[in-house]
Amino acid sequence: MSKGITSRQEDYSKWYNDIVVKADLAENSGVRGSMVIKPYGYAIWEKMKEQLDKMFKETGHQNAYFPLFIPKSYFTKEASHVDGFAKECAVVTHYRLKTNQKGEIVVDENAKLEEELIVRPTSETIIWSTYKKWIHSYRDLPILINQWANVVRWEMRTRLFLRTSEFLWQEGHTAHATAEEAIAETKQMLDIYAEFAEKWMAMPVIKGSKSESERFAGALDTLSIEAMMQDGKALQAGTSHFLGQNFAKAFEVKFTSKEGNEEYVWASSWGVSTRLMGALIMAHSDDKGLVLPPKLAPIQVVIVPIYKNEDQLETIRIKVKEITEKLKTKDISFKFDDRTTQRPGFKFAEWELKGVPIRLAIGPRDIENGTIELARRDTSEKKIYNIEGIENIIKDLLHEIQDNIFKKALKFRKENTFKADTYDEFKKIIEKGGFVLAHWDGTAETEEKIQQETKATIRNIPFDSPEEEGKCIVTGKPSKRRALFAKAY
Amino acid sequence: MSKGITSRQEDYSKWYNDIVVKADLAENSGVRGSMVIKPYGYAIWEKMKEQLDKMFKETGHQNAYFPLFIPKSYFTKEASHVDGFAKECAVVTHYRLKTNQKGEIVVDENAKLEEELIVRPTSETIIWSTYKKWIHSYRDLPILINQWANVVRWEMRTRLFLRTSEFLWQEGHTAHATAEEAIAETKQMLDIYAEFAEKWMAMPVIKGSKSESERFAGALDTLSIEAMMQDGKALQAGTSHFLGQNFAKAFEVKFTSKEGNEEYVWASSWGVSTRLMGALIMAHSDDKGLVLPPKLAPIQVVIVPIYKNEDQLETIRIKVKEITEKLKTKDISFKFDDRTTQRPGFKFAEWELKGVPIRLAIGPRDIENGTIELARRDTSEKKIYNIEGIENIIKDLLHEIQDNIFKKALKFRKENTFKADTYDEFKKIIEKGGFVLAHWDGTAETEEKIQQETKATIRNIPFDSPEEEGKCIVTGKPSKRRALFAKAY
Repeated sequence: MSKGITSRQEDYSKWYNDIVVKADLAENSGVRGSMVIKPYGYAIWEKMKEQLDKMFKETGHQNAYFPLFIPKSYFTKEASHVDGFAKECAVVTHYRLKTNQKGEIVVDENAKLEEELIVRPTSETIIWSTYKKWIHSYRDLPILINQWANVVRWEMRTRLFLRTSEFLWQEGHTAHATAEEAIAETKQMLDIYAEFAEKWMAMPVIKGSKSESERFAGALDTLSIEAMMQDGKALQAGTSHFLGQNFAKAFEVKFTSKEGNEEYVWASSWGVSTRLMGALIMAHSDDKGLVLPPKLAPIQVVIVPIYKNEDQLETIRIKVKEITEKLKTKDISFKFDDRTTQRPGFKFAEWELKGVPIRLAIGPRDIENGTIELARRDTSEKKIYNIEGIENIIKDLLHEIQDNIFKKALKFRKENTFKADTYDEFKKIIEKGGFVLAHWDGTAETEEKIQQETKATIRNIPFDSPEEEGKCIVTGKPSKRRALFAKAY
Repeated sequence: MSKGITSRQEDYSKWYNDIVVKADLAENSGVRGSMVIKPYGYAIWEKMKEQLDKMFKETGHQNAYFPLFIPKSYFTKEASHVDGFAKECAVVTHYRLKTNQKGEIVVDENAKLEEELIVRPTSETIIWSTYKKWIHSYRDLPILINQWANVVRWEMRTRLFLRTSEFLWQEGHTAHATAEEAIAETKQMLDIYAEFAEKWMAMPVIKGSKSESERFAGALDTLSIEAMMQDGKALQAGTSHFLGQNFAKAFEVKFTSKEGNEEYVWASSWGVSTRLMGALIMAHSDDKGLVLPPKLAPIQVVIVPIYKNEDQLETIRIKVKEITEKLKTKDISFKFDDRTTQRPGFKFAEWELKGVPIRLAIGPRDIENGTIELARRDTSEKKIYNIEGIENIIKDLLHEIQDNIFKKALKFRKENTFKADTYDEFKKIIEKGGFVLAHWDGTAETEEKIQQETKATIRNIPFDSPEEEGKCIVTGKPSKRRALFAKAY
C-alpha cells in the first residue's frame, strides 16, 4: 500500500524517517535544520509536557519565562559554557530590513545592533543574570524554576526530532543555599525523568553520571538517563546538571547565609526535549509503523465501521455512540473513523501506522451478536468481545499494553547488554550493536581512543554498577566500576 | 509600607508599572525590550492559555509547531505583509561565534548565512509555505491549526506586557475551500476571544471591524475586540483576520475543488498575546494593587493565621488543614501563608497587592467560636462566617466576585462612552478620556487628520453600531454608521 514503510532490517535509518513522516509526526521545513511538528506529533508532545509539568509542579517547581535573546556579553561570562556553545549559535546582528534602490528587500545596515544577540541555545546565562536581582538572603532560596521554550543550536547534519537546529524543551534552573541541596535537586530531577521515561514512555532507562568529557559546558557533574533503541544504539533521553557555583561566580550571585556570611549560590539545571519523540519512536515501533504507549497516545482507541450501505453505517453509528459514551466515563480517548472515502483495510493500515493502541471493528453481524472485534497494536492479536462491558476490558487492556511495551523493551535491552573484559570482545559487541559494561581507567585519553577506534562512547557510569576490582580494557590500569559504552544518537 | 504603589490619580502609567513589578508579574530584563515573566505572572498566563486552548480544541483546532526562523525570501513574498513588518524584524545573519586574536569572542565572519533568517514576527509566510505541501484537494480542507509560540517585533519604546520586543502568543492559521467558510471562521474566533475576555477575564469588550488603514498587513478584513482601561483608553485585546487568497496566491497554494477546478485556498489568522496580561491589570486593579478575577487567579483564597505563640499557630494549623481539605473538594485553589518571618499586616498588604480574591484570617478566638474572618479583594468588605460550610460560601462568593468585577468594568465603560456629533464635542471627550462613537466619512485622510489632531484612532466599527444617517464630524460627508474612537495602548 502507498503508506508502506521501509523495514528496520532493510534500512533502520530510513525506517525511522518513514515513520516520522508517514505517521504525520513531523517533516522538514524550508528552513535548514528546522522541522515542522505536525498536529499528530504535537499532540504526543503535549501529552509528554502535561505529565512532566505535573511532576515538576508536584515537586515544588514553578514555570516562568526568560528572553529568547542573550546579549553576547552575558553569554561569554562563564568560560567553559561559551566554549561549549559558541560554535553552534544563531546570532542576531540587525533589527530592520529595508528596500534598496533596486527594489529588493535587504538588511538595513543602519540598523546594526551595538551588541550582538545570541538566540538561546540554553538559558543559564540569561537566568543567572536575573537571579542576581532576586537573590539576596537565604530567605530567597531555594528558587525552583522551570521554563518551557524553544532553543537553537546550529546543526550541520540534522534528523527529525533527534537533532534539529531549533527544538522545543523544558529547562529547569534552580538556586540553593548549599551544595548538598543542589546535588539532591539534581538527583531528584533525574529520578523524575527516569520515572517519566519508564512509566509514561514505557522506555527503560539507565541512570548514571557522565564522564568528565561528556559533561554539560559549565557543570561539575552531569547525570543522564540512557535508553536503548532497537538497533542497539543508545539515546540520551534527559540530563540533570550540578553546576556548583560556576554560574553564581560568573554572575556574582551571592546571598547572606543564616549565619550572616556572604556566600555564592549553588545551582542545578536539567532538561528534556522533543528528542524524546525520537526516543519514543525508536524504542517501540515496528515495521508496520508507530507503536504508542497508551498513556501518551492522543487516540487510545480507534473504531472502524464495516458496512456495505448507508443503512448499515447508520445502525453502526448508533451502536458506536453507545460505546463511546461508555469510553468517556473511563477517560479513554477515541476516534470513530467514519470516513466514507476510504475502505476498512486502508483505515486499519493507517491507524496501525499511527500507533493507536487498540482498534475496534464493528459490522452489522457484530451488532446482531452484541459483539465487537478488538485488535491490539502491540501484539497484533485480534479477539471478539461482548459489547456489554467493553469499556472495562479496554481500560484493563490499556494498562496491559503499557506494561507489555515496557517489558518488551526491557527484555530487548537485557538481551543486548553485555560485559566485556577484553578490548577485542568489546569491539565485537559494539560492532554488532548493543550496550557494553566494561572497565575503564577513568582518563579522557582512553575514552577518546575507544571512541575513535570503535565509535562507542561512555554513555554514563551507571548508579547501579556495583563496585568491583577490574582492569581497563584498553590500558589494563585498575578500575573500580564498569562504565556503560555504546554507539549513540 | 515598602510595597506601596503609586495611585492611579497620581500617575496612571507609573501605577501600572508598579503593579507589574511589585506584584511579581514581570520585570525588564537585561535584553533591550524583552521582559522576564516571573512565576506569579506566568501562572496567570498559564490559566489564560489553558482556557483558550480548551476553547480552540472544542471548536476543532489542533496545535502544531512551525520554525522560529523565516527565510527572507519567504518573508518577502506577500508584498503588503513585508511592508508591515520589515521595519521591526530581528535578523539572524551568522551561525557561529569564534575567539579572535585578542582572545575576544566575536561573530565568525566565515559563518555568514547565504540567506538571512527573520525571527518570526508572525508566522503566515512560513505556515503557508508549508500548507502548499499539505493541500491538494478539497478533502485536505479545512486545516484548522493553532500555534503557541514566542514572536519578536522590534520595538523602540517598550512597556511590560503591553509592548515588548519578544512576546508570547497564540496564532491560529486556517485554510478553507470557500471565502464564506474562512469568513465564518474569522468571526467564530473573534467570538471566542470575546467570550474569553468577558467570562474569564471579566473584561467587557466591543467587537467590530478595523478600518482599512488599521488592518493586519496582508488581510482583507481585520476584526478586533476592544476593551476600556481605567484611564479611558482602549486596548486591542485580540484580532482575527480574513486573509482572502493573499497568502495562497503568494505561495501558490491551490486545491482541486469538488467540481474538479483548480482554486486558490482561502485563509484566516487570529491571535492573542501576553498583552492580555496588561489588559487584565488595567481593567480591574486599584490603588492597593492587582485585582484578579477568580477564574484566572493562581491562588483564589489565602489563609493568614493570627497568633501569638507557636502553640496557637499549631492549633490554627490543624483547623486550617480541615478547611483546606474542604476547599480541595470544591476545586478551590488556596495558600496557607504560615511564614513566621512576617506579621499579618504585611501579609494582608502583600496578598492584596497580588490580587488574591478572598482572604481568610483565623486566630485562637475564631477557633473557639468556630468562625473565620473573610475579606473580599474586590470590595474590601470583611465579614465573619462559621467555619462549618465555609467551602460553599467561598464557592458562591468566587462566582459573585467574578460577576461583580465584570459589572464594575462594564459600568465604568458605559459611563465613559459617549456619542459626539461635532468635532469640538469629540475633541473635548477625547481630551478628558473615554470612548467616542462618531460618524466618519470612511476615508483614510479623515482618519489620519483626527489622529494627528487628537491622538484618537478608530478602534473599530462596532458590529452592534446601528445603521443611522449621519454626517462625518470632520468633513460633513454622509456616514451610515458610527465608528468607535479612542486613544489607545
